[in-house]
Formats: sequence, C-alpha cells, structure tokens
Amino acid sequence: MKLATYTDAGQTRTGIVVGDRIIDTGVAGTMIDLIRDWEALQPALAAKAAAGGGVPLASVRLEAPVQRPGKIFAIGLNYADHIAESKMATPERQVWFTKAQTSVNAPFDPIQIARTTATADYEVELVAIIGTGGKHIAAADAPAVIFGYCVGNDITERMWQHAGPQWSLGKSFDTHAPMGPWIVTADELGDPHDLGLRCFVNGEKRQDSNTSHLVFNIWQQVEHLSVGMTLEPGDVLFTGTPGGVGAAMNPRRFLTAGDVVRCEIDRLGAIEGVMRDEG
Amino acid sequence: MKLATYTDAGQTRTGIVVGDRIIDTGVAGTMIDLIRDWEALQPALAAKAAAGGGVPLASVRLEAPVQRPGKIFAIGLNYADHIAESKMATPERQVWFTKAQTSVNAPFDPIQIARTTATADYEVELVAIIGTGGKHIAAADAPAVIFGYCVGNDITERMWQHAGPQWSLGKSFDTHAPMGPWIVTADELGDPHDLGLRCFVNGEKRQDSNTSHLVFNIWQQVEHLSVGMTLEPGDVLFTGTPGGVGAAMNPRRFLTAGDVVRCEIDRLGAIEGVMRDEG
Repeated sequence: MKLATYTDAGQTRTGIVVGDRIIDTGVAGTMIDLIRDWEALQPALAAKAAAGGGVPLASVRLEAPVQRPGKIFAIGLNYADHIAESKMATPERQVWFTKAQTSVNAPFDPIQIARTTATADYEVELVAIIGTGGKHIAAADAPAVIFGYCVGNDITERMWQHAGPQWSLGKSFDTHAPMGPWIVTADELGDPHDLGLRCFVNGEKRQDSNTSHLVFNIWQQVEHLSVGMTLEPGDVLFTGTPGGVGAAMNPRRFLTAGDVVRCEIDRLGAIEGVMRDEG
Repeated sequence: MKLATYTDAGQTRTGIVVGDRIIDTGVAGTMIDLIRDWEALQPALAAKAAAGGGVPLASVRLEAPVQRPGKIFAIGLNYADHIAESKMATPERQVWFTKAQTSVNAPFDPIQIARTTATADYEVELVAIIGTGGKHIAAADAPAVIFGYCVGNDITERMWQHAGPQWSLGKSFDTHAPMGPWIVTADELGDPHDLGLRCFVNGEKRQDSNTSHLVFNIWQQVEHLSVGMTLEPGDVLFTGTPGGVGAAMNPRRFLTAGDVVRCEIDRLGAIEGVMRDEG
C-alpha cells in the first residue's frame, strides 16, 4: 500500500494512493496514529483501496508522510563512493547524527538557503519509517519492525556541519528534511537493498547509485540504534547517501536560489523542491 | 510560578507547585500546550496559585516537566573546568549535539545502565525550556523567548559517545535525560547566570560550580541555534555541564547499579535517580 499525508480543503489527513488518485483513510489523527494501529487498520484500508474512489492526487497538497517524527536519525559515511569523495576512512562502527523535527519539509515544497551561508547541499537517501519498533532488535528481526519506506533528501548546511565536531545542527536547518512523496509499505516494496537512487539538480544527474551498496544495511542500522534507544512508530531513519554531493565536486558546487533538486528512488517515486533564499 | 507535569489517580496533567502542595492547572493537554497559551493562561493560573488548595506534592508522581519535547539540544564543552578535564580546547564556536525524545526521564525515576556497556556518567546541567521561541533571535531578545528553567542530568554512555565522531546516539539512551522537578518560570527565577549547581553520587559531591562560568551563555545559545532552526514552545536546551564528571576522574568512575545520583541547582530544586541495570 502507498500511504500519504495530504491537505485537501484545508484539512490535513492520511490517504491511500492508488494510481493517480488518493483515498481518505478516514483514520483519525496523524500518520503516526495510523502506523501505531496498523495491524488493526490494514484489512479495512486494503478494502478501501480496492473499492477505489477518492480524488485526483494532483488536486491535493502532499505533506511529508510523517510531519512530526519523534526522532530522525541519519547515518553518515554509508556508501563507499561517498566515503571516498569525503576523504574519510570507512568507519568501523556506524556513525549517526540527527535532524530536528522542525527540519521536516513537504516533498514538493521550496527548500530554504539560510541567510548566513551559501553552502546548502543535497543528499538523496532511502528513508525507513519505523512501525512497531522496540528495543534490542536483532538484525534478523529488523524487517518486521519497519513500516515502510520513502524518498528523503538530507539537505545539509556544509559550513555549519563542519564548523565544529558535531553535525546535527548543520543537518537540522528548517526545511532541510524533505520526505515523500508517500510511504510504500514494507510488504509492498519488497527488498529495500536493491533500489536505484538518483539526485538531479536542474536536470543534471549528480548522484546515481543503488541501495545494494550500503556499507551498513538497514537491518544492521536498526540493531545498532535499538541497543540504546526504543524505536517508536513513525521514527525516521535516513539510511545514507551515495557519492556525488556538491561539496565533493571540484570546484565545489552548492545549491543556489532557483535550483530544482529532484531525488528519486526505484519503486518509491520522486520528491522535488526549488531552492529559495530564506529572505 | 512553578509548573510541573504530574500523575495523580492515573491521570497525567499539569500543576502549579505552591509550597508542599500541587494545584491542578485545569488546562487541557500537555505542558507544551500550556506553554503555547501561556500569555492567555497566566492571569488565571496566578489566581489559582494564590487561592491555594490542591493536594500534597508528596502524594503525586512527578513526571518530566516536558515529556515529549519537539527537540532537545545540548551544548558540549561549555564550562572551562570541564573543557580542561576533557583535555579539549575551548571551542571557538558552540558545539551542539542532541538527546532523543525517548531519553526523557521523570525526575525521581531510576536511570538505566545499558546491557552492553558499563560507562554511564552524570552531568548536572541547567535546562532552559523555550517559550514563544522563533527564529533569528538576537541574544538581546533571547530572555523573552524562554519560558523557564529546570534541573537536568545529561546522562551519557561514554563508550558510545566516543566510539565514533558523533555524540548524539551515546547521549540518547532511554532514561538518560532526567529533568525536573518542575519548571520555574523565567520571571520568577530572575538571572539564570548566577546559579550554583551540584551533582552528588551517593552523597559524595562530584560537581560544584555556578552558571556564571558558562563559556557561551544562554542568550548566545538561543541566538546560535535559531540561526538555522525555529525554536518552538517546549523545546529543551541543556546548557552545559561543569567539571567533575566520572570519565575525567583518575581512575575513571562510572555509575553502577544502586548508585544514587542527585543533581541540584539553586532556586530550582533537585532531581534524584537510582542507577539500575537495564535487565
């Protein structure tokens, strides 16, 4: 199933995407509420999807599938080519930072270039959305705790990321976590470790890889994080970006106002935002 | 005013602490809702506090004042003596990491020692709770956007903190952000930069300093964070810890099961938790 958060007639709700239409789930609350009750809701929602109806997708505004995740963790240095271009060593252990809840952005909304810097950069990433979650989840059990997947862009203020030793603030600027266009549930997606993912700036392909090249795969990521933290419904994991970021080009090429940044992943769809000065 | 989140007769609500009693605010929702509507609510709540009544504080369970902050940012290396004991240089810019929402702990609840490590450490900190918040807040305007203050303990899994370059995961283990016992509003507290703060383990004083020794003061912290992020009602800032942490002792002394960790700050009160193996 494909599940979106959308706004129609001034009301934000969850919907099922079927072809070029979207069907109101009728479930009260946010996507997190839906994920929490998924086991009970799934049969009725599958029936709704089969019955059809709804409104044209093009007539609604798509929001980030999870607008207020309890936590957003993102792994760094997790594709060999990105590690090489970053002139870093392959980490022995997973390297995680965070993105603030307030950095979440709708999949087709403009993305801000902050007033104080000119070093905004793109990072296409497969995003995993936690379902049942839990703690001390072995890698072998991890597939069962993931609700689904979507496309993410881990927009990064490079100057802020590298101004000190900790990355989280430079990763957390407003609008810097666009996600969407919807969640494809884990059962519908199948293997998440064989997906082509690409990023384009103004139509020029900048990143082009496959999730099969992840250094630490998603099951290992869930195991690692859940050693210490309880993963909860709707928590978001950015699973790493491949090579090709602007900061690694020679000369470096950062995003400027008017640039159109498109991130797409096989079987998940695409998100696209225009860069805009914050003003 | 002193404002707490508490559970009584199975219901969690917000209350006004007056002496040794707590008075239900009657406000629907969480502390974040109360903070958001503070300007409108304040006169009625002041009247409630003056009228007295309520129930004995000792008869209720105190929760973390904000149980689900949208974000928790914490500054590292922000007292000269802690920088020296950490064998680090004084940072030219503020160094921020995060603590996960799921690490929040009630002020008198047990604190977990994770299964996989034996390197849990304490860090007493003054915690600022954002009120109106906003973006691009100049240091001079920062006092007006802070709702109040409480005591925090930035419990840290040292092994995890230093296993890689990024600290946020090692700072985010479940139960590792005890806060409380309540929020003292900014107007009642007065100057937050002249507060003694202390941490005791089993009655032995381990940290003893004053917020006058902050390297970057709270107004500078708000200015720095709000360059990139919108600060929202109920967001939490851990403002730094002074010297005396267990990791810097010779030999190192980490917390073990049964240890009682007490953090206290002048005019704010104290929080205290017993260390317990996660099991």
